[in-house]
Amino acid sequence: MLKRMGRYTIAFETRPRITGYGSVAGKKEAQGPLGNNFDKLFYDAYMGQKTFEKAESLLQREAVLFALKRSCLKSEDVDFIFAGDLLNQCIGSSFGVKDFNIPYLGQYGACSTMAQGLIMAAVMVESGAANRAACVTSSHFCTAERQYRLPLEYGGQRTPTSQWTVTGSGCCVLENQGKAPFVSKATVGRIADFGVSDLNNMGAAMAPAASNTIIDFFRDTDTKPCDYDMIFTGDLGYVGSKCLYELLEREGYDISRNHKDCGLMIFDRKNQDVHSGGSGCGCAASVLCSTILPEMIDGEFNNILFVATGALMSPTSAGQGESIPAVAHLVNIRYNQHF
Amino acid sequence: MLKRMGRYTIAFETRPRITGYGSVAGKKEAQGPLGNNFDKLFYDAYMGQKTFEKAESLLQREAVLFALKRSCLKSEDVDFIFAGDLLNQCIGSSFGVKDFNIPYLGQYGACSTMAQGLIMAAVMVESGAANRAACVTSSHFCTAERQYRLPLEYGGQRTPTSQWTVTGSGCCVLENQGKAPFVSKATVGRIADFGVSDLNNMGAAMAPAASNTIIDFFRDTDTKPCDYDMIFTGDLGYVGSKCLYELLEREGYDISRNHKDCGLMIFDRKNQDVHSGGSGCGCAASVLCSTILPEMIDGEFNNILFVATGALMSPTSAGQGESIPAVAHLVNIRYNQHF
Repeated sequence: MLKRMGRYTIAFETRPRITGYGSVAGKKEAQGPLGNNFDKLFYDAYMGQKTFEKAESLLQREAVLFALKRSCLKSEDVDFIFAGDLLNQCIGSSFGVKDFNIPYLGQYGACSTMAQGLIMAAVMVESGAANRAACVTSSHFCTAERQYRLPLEYGGQRTPTSQWTVTGSGCCVLENQGKAPFVSKATVGRIADFGVSDLNNMGAAMAPAASNTIIDFFRDTDTKPCDYDMIFTGDLGYVGSKCLYELLEREGYDISRNHKDCGLMIFDRKNQDVHSGGSGCGCAASVLCSTILPEMIDGEFNNILFVATGALMSPTSAGQGESIPAVAHLVNIRYNQHF
Repeated sequence: MLKRMGRYTIAFETRPRITGYGSVAGKKEAQGPLGNNFDKLFYDAYMGQKTFEKAESLLQREAVLFALKRSCLKSEDVDFIFAGDLLNQCIGSSFGVKDFNIPYLGQYGACSTMAQGLIMAAVMVESGAANRAACVTSSHFCTAERQYRLPLEYGGQRTPTSQWTVTGSGCCVLENQGKAPFVSKATVGRIADFGVSDLNNMGAAMAPAASNTIIDFFRDTDTKPCDYDMIFTGDLGYVGSKCLYELLEREGYDISRNHKDCGLMIFDRKNQDVHSGGSGCGCAASVLCSTILPEMIDGEFNNILFVATGALMSPTSAGQGESIPAVAHLVNIRYNQHF
């Protein structure tokens, strides 16, 4: 059973375990600081497919296969898969996972999708609805740029606050048994809209959502930043992380000493020309499944917060002059070698 | 706790109850056979908003307000809201519900979204993760036509198999107490892709998904069509319903005597020029919340299946020559006056 803690947080009693995880990424990610951590790297943006969209679907497919392999399961062993991505109508997911024949629940949380999928999969396992559930998400630089911004051939100048969409995917498989990192608590975010409308500054648009959800969690659980080994945000980047520190400091929380942002981990900002850092659903997902979970298993962290943020706009809403609503979901993941 | 039944079905033990529901619709729906059933009707496609997209968001907002009112709840009483729609990046939902300040989980199931949201909300309530959870979805003729097909001003000829996107929205609020129709069982669908690629024949693309999910449910529960007072499909329309009958007959199931399709209920095909019937996320949602649930409470049905189907393509995937993958989710809703 699940228990509610405070106003916004849920606690998992039987510890849904992340027994499998898989990550794949592209060339720029391969050249970044985490390049050696991914299960598979694709150096060609088309990945042998006819279109970038089909390439993105292949990213999801490969991530699922690695997660299944690591959990020693076949696709027919999985009761539900939660999948989502940034493409219109989430075609990266529907075409990416359709051949697995797993009951499918499409999610849309923009770049918060990995945290959302983790929460939903954990709820299914904890409640008895599933013995095993998976979640997967992806992004691809070439599909995102041409859908959200400009044709790739245009070669437009990027502003300093802009972020670089990660080409990558991450998948987790959760089960109700085994020795593995487990989902301990979670906070589902409310939509925050502070009126930011600069499409080249997603970090600033998403920081208030991250701040709200983190504060909700600390209050609900009566804990503070230093109670956690590390607080990982999804893809706030350099600008968004600074905004988050300021917003949290106003409420008396200092996370600057144990905070990392996946968008800053995946690229070397000095040498890779990514401006404010990485972004995209695949950013938080591929960093979680390539780096964070393996580091937990290696004993580097026992108790972390994984907070993925999403900007819930579209080119249509932006073109109509609307602001950028954002959301952030938080997952408290724990692991104890001796447990 | 939830129990698994057979391979694909889940059973709810404590009967998550649909204590509130709300429905709104547009002018064409007002002129249809269910016109008197909706909570509110908008005769202007803009609904006083600057854009059709903002009008669609207003549809969701109004449906949520009616559902809250009927369940005697305020928005702050609701622990989670599951919302989704057909617009790119689901902006109908994010802009529609953001001001309610309810923890938000965006869903993408195309026209299957109402069934998906109902299942997710029921799981949250059953598992103890929520005391109350809501689900909402919408569609709008003008936003869908120009996004999926052609500019409205173009006035393109429609093929006989095409369907008419419903302008409407439906919302349900679920709680773990009270006297109301309840979610008894559910089957989450797998993605079916039979290679149909005709964008003007969604019914044929979605029928195999509906057939698979209905057969999964009958096998898992060891029941047959006549065990249910009525089987409602979402928006297969005339062509898709015929396909569904054929596919089910091959497996020995005849649902033709107790089947209704929401896409055929909402419009008068003979006099409203809608060709194969209604479609869109708002079709199944608004029919459920305006007609099916009230009829259950009036004692017309005690035990129904609500099967919403979704086509998981996008204009991009269609333009790239891909087929149309589809999914269908089934919810078994029961109500007993004397229970």
